Amino acid sequence: MAEKTFTIKGDIVWSAGPTELAAVKDGYLVVVDGLVAGVFPELPAEYADIELVDKTGMLVMPGLVDAHVHAPQYAFRGTGLDLELLDWLNTYTFPEEAKYADLDYAERAYDIFVDDLKNSETCRAIVFGTLHVPATEMLMDKLEATGLKSYVGKVNMDRNGAPGLEEDTRQSLADTEQWLADTRDRYENTKPILTPRFTPSCTDELMEGIGKLKAAQNVPLQSHLSENLSEIDWVAELCPWASCYGDTYLQTGQLAGPAKSIMAHCVYSTTNEVEILKGTGCYIALCPESNADLASGIAPVRMYFDLGMNLALGSDVAGGPHLSMFSAIAHTVSLSKLRWRCVDESLKPITIPEAIYIATVGGGSFFGKVGTFEPGFEADILVLDDSGIRSTVDLDTQHRLERFCYEANAGGRVDAKFVAGRQIF
Amino acid sequence: MAEKTFTIKGDIVWSAGPTELAAVKDGYLVVVDGLVAGVFPELPAEYADIELVDKTGMLVMPGLVDAHVHAPQYAFRGTGLDLELLDWLNTYTFPEEAKYADLDYAERAYDIFVDDLKNSETCRAIVFGTLHVPATEMLMDKLEATGLKSYVGKVNMDRNGAPGLEEDTRQSLADTEQWLADTRDRYENTKPILTPRFTPSCTDELMEGIGKLKAAQNVPLQSHLSENLSEIDWVAELCPWASCYGDTYLQTGQLAGPAKSIMAHCVYSTTNEVEILKGTGCYIALCPESNADLASGIAPVRMYFDLGMNLALGSDVAGGPHLSMFSAIAHTVSLSKLRWRCVDESLKPITIPEAIYIATVGGGSFFGKVGTFEPGFEADILVLDDSGIRSTVDLDTQHRLERFCYEANAGGRVDAKFVAGRQIF
Repeated sequence: MAEKTFTIKGDIVWSAGPTELAAVKDGYLVVVDGLVAGVFPELPAEYADIELVDKTGMLVMPGLVDAHVHAPQYAFRGTGLDLELLDWLNTYTFPEEAKYADLDYAERAYDIFVDDLKNSETCRAIVFGTLHVPATEMLMDKLEATGLKSYVGKVNMDRNGAPGLEEDTRQSLADTEQWLADTRDRYENTKPILTPRFTPSCTDELMEGIGKLKAAQNVPLQSHLSENLSEIDWVAELCPWASCYGDTYLQTGQLAGPAKSIMAHCVYSTTNEVEILKGTGCYIALCPESNADLASGIAPVRMYFDLGMNLALGSDVAGGPHLSMFSAIAHTVSLSKLRWRCVDESLKPITIPEAIYIATVGGGSFFGKVGTFEPGFEADILVLDDSGIRSTVDLDTQHRLERFCYEANAGGRVDAKFVAGRQIF
Repeated sequence: MAEKTFTIKGDIVWSAGPTELAAVKDGYLVVVDGLVAGVFPELPAEYADIELVDKTGMLVMPGLVDAHVHAPQYAFRGTGLDLELLDWLNTYTFPEEAKYADLDYAERAYDIFVDDLKNSETCRAIVFGTLHVPATEMLMDKLEATGLKSYVGKVNMDRNGAPGLEEDTRQSLADTEQWLADTRDRYENTKPILTPRFTPSCTDELMEGIGKLKAAQNVPLQSHLSENLSEIDWVAELCPWASCYGDTYLQTGQLAGPAKSIMAHCVYSTTNEVEILKGTGCYIALCPESNADLASGIAPVRMYFDLGMNLALGSDVAGGPHLSMFSAIAHTVSLSKLRWRCVDESLKPITIPEAIYIATVGGGSFFGKVGTFEPGFEADILVLDDSGIRSTVDLDTQHRLERFCYEANAGGRVDAKFVAGRQIF
């Protein structure tokens, strides 16, 4: 296993900017102490003595970030996709999440989730746990051991829950404060993130308390926003004081910096809501497969992209059926085409290089200098073997990566993965 | 390798009808001389002496049919998906198909396509070749050797082609007639199918000639219909004599029986066109992934399904990026949800059991008594290992198959495949 200073030889490809890929075929990606030193067509003499990891013929790209994934829902992935969001939560999701009060169950389930995530193409993840502190800390322990970098959230929910899955408001805030104190410096790779489930699950008092915690403790925050039409109607009923769904987070201090915030979905954000998100720098975790599988709709990714908003990509397991971020990239593109065709021809489809940018640089920036091969960025690296995608057609390096996004599970194989210069497999 | 008479023990699941799955856990599927004898909870004494293939714990389902796939486009799968249909054909497809004039190229490319199809979940396929007779016969030879059952078409196109990819009308008809004579009895598993590319590629004279061949030779026919809005407009210009795109095939005799016809796509069929298809019994090969990837739209599958029309499912490689029919099933469902949400809430989403029915019984019926485990049906069988889809949640057999459709490439594995009782792998 390569240590944190090494050179990878291969066909190196990364986002040169939001809309295009750069590549150096048979190039050298030099990593020094976990950071990218540069990409070179010939190995500079000063690096001649460091370890060479020879991946000649393979693609070498920046690591992918899964910016929205529910660890406790992994157990029922690929099932229960016959309902829309609110019924799906009550019928399948809440009963499953309630099981995580049992640490034995949580251990068995999280072992599978963490192992599969480790072996996936995801280098970093922003993860929902459940409302249970012990199970969430166990999840953090397990994620820490993989070497992946993650933010993990103990969920807050004090209304509209289910038997065994609802908190007292003050207890929720007290538990969260204690959990932050216990975990914020415990791990090298794993950090806590405030995680109010979504407005329908959180009273105004809880939302305000979380907003205060965010400001006081300077920790990031994740939640859901404008995923489903019935959900949006419900929020309008629950929070008549808010000008839009996004305003429920804004007015309760949850989008205030300097710590970042990230909202999943934003399928139906209004002009007002878009202004709130843009004004606060709030990230959007786009989850195209989940939005199809739960019949939610298709987010206007092109609008957000052209506005220069902070975008990331998520699997949203188990609204999405699997952890594949290559599939998420392909779906970002294909569903944006259907939105263009079926909903609004003023918004051009997203291209594969743009979706790769969102899934690498976009999600990576939530973590810092992550997601590309510019010098000084943390060395998150995927080595991709596309030799199993057999063809008589020769492609340049950029188009091989584009093809890999479609064929990752049809002949493609992730050969190696590095996070901040540490080899995961 | 099991011969044509054997019993498979496993968790057996098949379509009990258009909307639901039947299952026998730890059951016995008995095959006698390539035909299904029955599914039994206990092995009847009369079958005690035949070979037992023990697949305890695995799913056993009917074979999947890929009802629309372009063999020569497999070489550029997963690339060139940045254009709509007509530009895509001219820019990527026609130049690639022209290469199949060179038998050496065709051999290298078709070896890959056929090998990957053999190792896929597809048991039967309805395949487009190119206009080249020698390359198409080579493709037929190779498919025959796999044991898969297929219809294969030498393409006809005498207008709007590309350099090296356009025929003289009379030569096209003469070549097709000779090719039919040469191949219709040559193979056990592989049969010719008339394949006018689509109306924009075929003059009225060619279309009429093909219609006459269909009637005279009683061979089936495949083509494309109402895939893309610009295509439909173009057909209206080219054929002012037709009441709709489908009428161009009807009036030229191409939908007349008794031999079957199948039209790919039908994303935008008008009421008139639907009546033509229903009245003639013409099949529709639905290709949801391709229709997303080429920004064509989403077909109203629910309408066709509730009308009881003949439906099948296709990968449409290389408009679709891969051969996975499990992915085609999952996309049929997820995109029908988006159509319901974004286009027409009067048409309910398709369910997974309905999509499985289309992909097994639906496509299978084009070949005869194929696609289910009723006694007397040809024994097309997939054995599915879902032990790699690790979970703490227990599912019944039907829901394990539903999950497999989403997870086929995320932990799932096809363990064995049989076509008409012959083991392929």
